[in-house]
This record gives sequence, structure tokens and C-alpha cells, in this order.
Amino acid sequence: MSDKPKKQQKLKARLPRGLEDRGPAAIAATREMVEKIRAVYERYGFEPVETPAFEYTDALGKFLPDQDRPNEGVFSFQDDDEQWISLRYDLTAPLARYVGERYGTDGLVLPYRSYRSGYVFRNEKPGPGRFRQFMQFDADTVGSASPAADAEMCMMAADTMEALGLKGHFIVKVSNRKVLDGVRESLNVTDDVQWLTVMRAIDKLDRLGWEGVEQLLGVGRKDESGDFAKGAGLSNDAINMIKVFLEGGLPVDVSLAENPHRPMHDMKTNHPGTFVDNLYGLSQWHGLIGQTKSGAEGLKDLTEIVSFCEAAGYGSNRITVDVSVVRGLEYYTGPVFEVELLLETKDEKGRPVRFGSVGGGGRYDGLVSRFRGEPVPATGFSIGVSRLQAALTLLGKLDTRPAFGPVVVTVFDRDRVADYQKMVATLRNHGIRAELYLGNPKNMGNQLKYADRRNAPCVIIQGSDEKARGEVQIKDLIEGAKAAAAIASNQEWRESRPAQVSAKEDELVAAVREVLARHDVSWG
Amino acid sequence: MSDKPKKQQKLKARLPRGLEDRGPAAIAATREMVEKIRAVYERYGFEPVETPAFEYTDALGKFLPDQDRPNEGVFSFQDDDEQWISLRYDLTAPLARYVGERYGTDGLVLPYRSYRSGYVFRNEKPGPGRFRQFMQFDADTVGSASPAADAEMCMMAADTMEALGLKGHFIVKVSNRKVLDGVRESLNVTDDVQWLTVMRAIDKLDRLGWEGVEQLLGVGRKDESGDFAKGAGLSNDAINMIKVFLEGGLPVDVSLAENPHRPMHDMKTNHPGTFVDNLYGLSQWHGLIGQTKSGAEGLKDLTEIVSFCEAAGYGSNRITVDVSVVRGLEYYTGPVFEVELLLETKDEKGRPVRFGSVGGGGRYDGLVSRFRGEPVPATGFSIGVSRLQAALTLLGKLDTRPAFGPVVVTVFDRDRVADYQKMVATLRNHGIRAELYLGNPKNMGNQLKYADRRNAPCVIIQGSDEKARGEVQIKDLIEGAKAAAAIASNQEWRESRPAQVSAKEDELVAAVREVLARHDVSWG
Repeated sequence: MSDKPKKQQKLKARLPRGLEDRGPAAIAATREMVEKIRAVYERYGFEPVETPAFEYTDALGKFLPDQDRPNEGVFSFQDDDEQWISLRYDLTAPLARYVGERYGTDGLVLPYRSYRSGYVFRNEKPGPGRFRQFMQFDADTVGSASPAADAEMCMMAADTMEALGLKGHFIVKVSNRKVLDGVRESLNVTDDVQWLTVMRAIDKLDRLGWEGVEQLLGVGRKDESGDFAKGAGLSNDAINMIKVFLEGGLPVDVSLAENPHRPMHDMKTNHPGTFVDNLYGLSQWHGLIGQTKSGAEGLKDLTEIVSFCEAAGYGSNRITVDVSVVRGLEYYTGPVFEVELLLETKDEKGRPVRFGSVGGGGRYDGLVSRFRGEPVPATGFSIGVSRLQAALTLLGKLDTRPAFGPVVVTVFDRDRVADYQKMVATLRNHGIRAELYLGNPKNMGNQLKYADRRNAPCVIIQGSDEKARGEVQIKDLIEGAKAAAAIASNQEWRESRPAQVSAKEDELVAAVREVLARHDVSWG
Repeated sequence: MSDKPKKQQKLKARLPRGLEDRGPAAIAATREMVEKIRAVYERYGFEPVETPAFEYTDALGKFLPDQDRPNEGVFSFQDDDEQWISLRYDLTAPLARYVGERYGTDGLVLPYRSYRSGYVFRNEKPGPGRFRQFMQFDADTVGSASPAADAEMCMMAADTMEALGLKGHFIVKVSNRKVLDGVRESLNVTDDVQWLTVMRAIDKLDRLGWEGVEQLLGVGRKDESGDFAKGAGLSNDAINMIKVFLEGGLPVDVSLAENPHRPMHDMKTNHPGTFVDNLYGLSQWHGLIGQTKSGAEGLKDLTEIVSFCEAAGYGSNRITVDVSVVRGLEYYTGPVFEVELLLETKDEKGRPVRFGSVGGGGRYDGLVSRFRGEPVPATGFSIGVSRLQAALTLLGKLDTRPAFGPVVVTVFDRDRVADYQKMVATLRNHGIRAELYLGNPKNMGNQLKYADRRNAPCVIIQGSDEKARGEVQIKDLIEGAKAAAAIASNQEWRESRPAQVSAKEDELVAAVREVLARHDVSWG
């Protein structure tokens, strides 16, 4: 070994911040989620594709929001030939590279419908529930300019949430960047930077509420930490127009009972307007931005998307128009989608917490084009698997019961390890999860404690007496735990020896199976 | 978008070398392999754990072989706080960090038996079948010094290969670094660098044969490219002793028929000595190195490992002693294992190619200790999933039949997309994989060609005539392909319209199911 252990220079075992280790329950939950998502994406006709964890930096492009930090949100390093390489920050940019490489060849059937899941990496400031490595599960359609492709993304998002057991607890919000462009045209904002500030302000409606957004659209806002964020500097008239726009042109003081056409985004509750009549809402916007070129186009696309969804049975209780949806990534060019969990939980101070977005996507017609020099329409949707899993865990919606551990064969006589190993092999050969106790066997109590902590259904013991009789002892730990709870004294325990049976050596498998069957033990 | 497409500056879509994209067949094969391996590891009582893709560089340590290149085989970058971070180069070093962080706490039950799969990254010169990102699947037992833990790794390796359909086509080779240390003591090699050269030479026996190893143990060797590698500079006597050692102390000119105790490593065929009597072979080595402290210890451990395996029913046809096994990674301290595929294939020039090692591992008692300042015994085994998959693919042992694509609903009338979308939703709601054609619908021929290329079992067509009759046309593409092969003329084709049926709109699902059942279409 080149690094010999040195007591005086003991290494500290720790992870870089924003990263986490994951144990059996989290891994099992992810696997279950991924399988359910995959089943939906497959049913929609998407096929899998996988790209590596890193790419040339220039191929990925720079589309992350808030690129104010030095390394712009990504992890990068130089290859031997001095070219810059970055870990993928999402699954869309690598797909664009993949398609760019194959577009127009026999290797790619167009429209190209594909899905993929995997970890992505963001060099961001980590926080609670905010990691620098997290999992996404994406589906994309490349080569179709049809709003039907966008509508399908929205429907698939809804089906995915229902497959994950969230029926009635989510809303898919759909908007269109072009609608926002219509607002820009109406307001005559010519400065790109100013407009970016406006969009970022609107994007924060979910988190800050209208009051915060209003400040960010105007002079600016001081956050909790006291930092001041400069605003977009819009006039009061302009800010008011944006407010009316976000509300869907409807007065906010009308309750749902009085007006079934609820506002698109309720400024009071800061919730999307579920049960709103999408098409009615869309018609209201025509008065605001219908006269602009982008606005008219955007409303036409949105209307088509909503119509396709409704034709397929997806009403506004699942898919709703909400023009406060912006999506941070800068490559979106038209329709944008976002899935929001409607469930609430409490934070450590007992305040209600909304989970917000657990997925989203949109149309990115320019991303593949960078490689082609010709227009390549594309749209996609991404589930934030890690984020959704964190939410489901907090909500108690994931199965976190510990799985059963293996049957543990104990070591009674140290010189008979080969015999015990043979028992283990016999159990395994019959499909039973089993292991030999591999720690120091000097103390049987430690072995039983180990089996208990592994959640073993039973342990096998064979001392010299049992060996002489050709028998093994099987100790049922599940039954034993119940009995222990019922038995008052140690003496009673020793006398009754609950949940322990003898079996002939050659009936070991049958006897263990009996214990497993008694407690419905299965290892999936 | 901050990067607008510029025709004159078109980006090149390409991957950094040594990386690969993976399509549906490869992804499905990996998933199947991973599930089979997982089932075996679970049966052995291991539980899953997952660590992130990168770690602090110092926590991973530097244990890769051939660290002559500037960045030493790993991909590294600096974090915001200037600390160096590296992508994991294997799954063992991160596990050591994981255990180091939790050792002695309630969070870790000892012995700790865990498994994990994932991509690892090596900044090496890529070559055919040699990638810079590849998948491994590991199992490790930390906190057990017992040779039973090592024996279990060997048995699990054998079971894994059989679960992957390779019964009779592999051999698990086991050795012990201490046995080599015994050779070192016998030869009185005091220089660490010289001994490293000796070990690396022995490690190449598989690839170079004895002739090449002999040169590397002596003055050195010129490879195919003309590069000269300096040798270890051993004397002829020393080299001969190593040869006898590698052969297991038996003459090589004796055939299997004449002597059932075949040499451990056959220098003529350069194959491990399958069907050798392990215990007999071990007894032969005692004369060579039994008088050295390390040699005696190493032989004792090996004998125990072999005994445990044999007691559990794993004879030398599956697990054999082969002291040419060194394993490149420098953290191994005792027993080392390697799984070799015995199947051969031909290279592009028709020469027989051996796949060599598809997995391995060993005992690394010093790796966790670096974090603890106390001894922490550990042993593990790793399957090279990517490498094994490449081998199985070459051997035609993986199912690469293309999966069926979705049922494609075509767009006959562009203004009735919502109707077609509804059909798609109906099929999907009944669990049928289906999609709307999302390309430009102007040409029905293109739509059928698309469905064909997606391997769709059937397409749905509804023109205005059918619509008026409340009907849809279902075109069976599988039947159609058969019919097309049988029909001679275009005219006959048009007249017979094979494999096309009409169905009532509300019987769409039943009619499609009939087509699917006819061809045993299922999407797993």
C-alpha cells in the first residue's frame, strides 16, 4: 500500500457538502419509483437511451439559472488534451448532443422519443433538501413541432404522479414562454437583462408570494439574510399589468363558489387555480396580450395543448394553465410545464411547508439546432426523482418498514466453521437468504444481538450436543420478540425458552421455511 | 437563450473519447444482469448501500495501478473551498470512507455486509472495450478477519456467474498476497520498487504468457509498439523459482491424464489449472515458501478458504488456487480473487481471444484503518458489469432481439389530432403501449415507415370515410411483413390489402389486443 495508516495523520472520513449516502430503505424506494415512472414512459411509447455522466463543456452549453458564481453551476475539469469537460447538470443537454450526433442518419428514427434516468450534478450552494448530486427521470420528443407533443408531456406527467400514488395531490401547470414574450411586447421592455430580471421575479411567485415578486419587479427586495436584490425597475402600471396577467384577468376577491372560473393563480393563497376552466381563462388573456405577435402565438399553442389534453380526458383538475410558470433553465423556447405537489407538511417550527415543483420541462427548439445549423424542434419533461422522494418520505407516503434480514447461522464451535458454512450453502441453494456469522464467535449473545439488529427472522444454532444428536436449534426471533414482551421475569424466560425448536439436520430447509411462512417473510 | 445558434460557429456534437452512449438493447441487458447479480448478493445476506459519484480526493486515496500519468488515473477538480474532489475510480474506496465515518456507531452493524452497483470513472487511455466510465457491482464484508468471509466472496462469485448463465464457462481463481510475500522473503528482495515490478510482471501472465513475464522479471521487454519496459532485474535462479511457484511446484510436461494433479497455472496453454486438486497443490507450495512467515500464513489462509468452499460444495472446477493472480489495485493485503471467463472468441483477424478477468477482489485490511487508527479487517468482490456485458454480447449470450415498439395511431386528417389523441389515451389507459404520430403528417407512407422502424406491432388509421362509419382501420405490421414477403406484385398487394382489418371505434381496444395476442406481443 502506498498510503500506510499513520496514527498521527488519521484521515477524516467525510463527504463533500451537498452529497449524501443512501441506505437500504432509500434505495428500495428509489428503485420502486423508477420502475413505476419507467412503466408510464414505456406505455407512452418512449424508448430508453443512456449517455455518460460527463460531456465536453461546450456541448452541454450554459443554460443554468443564476450563473453568477465563478464555475457557473457545473463541475468541470480539463482532459489530457486541455479540453474542458463537465459533469452533466441535467439530462436534456446531453440528449441534445446525442441527437445532434445522429440527426439525419439511419441511427435515429424521427420523431425520436426517448427516456432516461440518472444522476445529475450541480455545483450550487447546498441547503436542506438541496443536493449537489440528485436523480432525474426524463422523457423527450425530438423532431416534432406539434403542440400534441407538448400536450403528451403534460398528460404523461399527470399519469406518472398517479402511478406514484399521488392521485388528487398534484397539479400539472402549463404555460408558454411566448405568452411572457407577449407581455414583454405589451410593456415594450427592450433591455434583455431587465427582462431576465422580470422573468426571474415571476418565477419566484411560488416561493415569495405576490408581495415579494412585486418588489423584485420594482426597485428590489431585501431577503431574510438582509441581502438586497436589485429589482427590474418597472413602473407601477407595468407591475399592475403583470399582476392582472398572472391572475388570469380575473378579480381575486371572488370566491370559487361565486365564480367557477377561478383565477389562474390565486394571489391570496399563492396556489395555482385548480378547477379553473382553462379555455375560459385563456380567452381572458386575449384582451391583455392577444394583439402582440408572440402573445397571439403563445395563446394559440396553449389553447391547442389544453384542447388535446381535454380530448384525452385530462381536465383542469390535473392539467391547468398557470402563466407564473417560467422554469429557470434558459434553453426553453415555448411551452413550459411544471408539476406541483399540492400536499403540505410542517417544518421544524410547525409552519406549513409546500413542496413546490417536483418536475417540469418544456420546448427547447434551439438546443439541438446548435449542432445542426438547422431548426430541430424538441420538447421534454423531467421528474425530480430525488426531490419527489424527499417529499414522499416527509409525507410518510413511502414504505419504510425495514426489510427482513437473512437467516443467520451462528458459530458455536469455532473449529466447525466448515459445517456451518455448509448449512448456509444449503439454505442459499434453496433460495433462502442466509449467512454465516462472520464476526468474532466467542460470545453467542453478540451473535444473537447481531441477528436481531439485522432483522433476521431466525437463527440456527448447533452445539456439540445437537451435533451428536444430528440436530439443529432454530430460534424464531420474531416470535421470540413477541414472547419477550409478554414474559415478565428472566427466570420464566429461561425455563420456557419460547420460540425455539429442534429439527433434524436434514430437515433444516423445511424447518426454516416453516418459520418464514409463519411470519410471511419474503425478500422480494 | 444565451448561446444562440450561429451557422458559422456550428458546434460539433461528440463525446470525449472512452465514453459511450447506450441504446435500448444494451440498457435492457444491463438491467437484467444487475437484477440477477442483485438477487445472488441478497441471497448471501448483503444489504444495499449507495455513495455519491465523487469524494474528497484524499478520502479515496491513491491505489490505482500504473500511476505514471500526470493525473494518476482519476478525474479530479477543486471545490469552491479549494479542496480536491475526485470521481470514484472504484466502489471500494468510497465504501471504506462510508464505514470509516460510521465505524463504532449504532449506524453500523458489524460485521457490515453490503452491496452496491454504479458507474466508476478512470482517467486512463481508452482502447477497444476499455472505457473511462464503466459499471461495477460490488459486495463487501467489513469487520470480519475470518477466511470464511473470503471463502464466501469466492462462492458468491461462482453463484453470480451461474446466475448469469455461465455455468461451466468460468473459473474463480484465488490466491493470497502473503504467499507472494513468502516468495519475496525466499528470494530476499528488499527493494519495494523492485518487488512492485515483480508483482506487476506476474500480474501480466494471463496476457503475455510466461515468455513475456520472464523478460519482465529479468532485464525487460520490448512490446509490440517498440516501447521498452525495464524489468525487475532478478537473477535466473530467482526467475526459475518464480516459474516453479506459479506452476504449483509441478512439472509442466505431464498431461492431465498422466497426473490428475495438474499444475495450478499451465505455462503451455497459459490457462488456470482447472480440475486441479486444490489441497494437493497447496501442499506442494509448502516446500517452496512454507519456511517463511508470510508464506506459511498465506498458505494457511488459502487452505482454510479452499476447505470452506469445498465443504459448501464448491470444488476446484469452480474455485481454484492460482498464484499468478495479483490484482492491480494496491490496497489488497491478503487473499485476492479473480473470475475468469473460459469462453473464447475470435478477433477481427480470426485469432482466438480470451476475455480474461470479468471480476475480482480481495482482502483490504488497511483501507478503512486509514480513517480509524485501528485495524479494521475487510474483504470484497467486484463484478465488472460493463466488461462482462461486452463479453456476453460478443459471445451472443445476451438477448438482443429488438423489443416491440408502441401501437402507432396515425394522423390522417390534420384537424382531427384531438380525436387521434383520444384513441391513444384510450389504448394507454388499458395498459397498451401506444403513441400518436408526432412528425409531419402530410404523408401516410412516412407514418407507416416510422411505425415500421419503431417495430410497432400495428398502426391505427382513421380517414373521413372510416370516421363517417364510426370505424377504425387496424394494420397488422407483423402479419403485413410476412404477407409482403409472399406477395409478388404491387397490384396483388393493393387488391388483397393483407393484414388490415376494420373495427368499430368502441371496439378499438379489443381489436388491438387481438393483434397483440396473435403475435405474443408483450412489453415486460
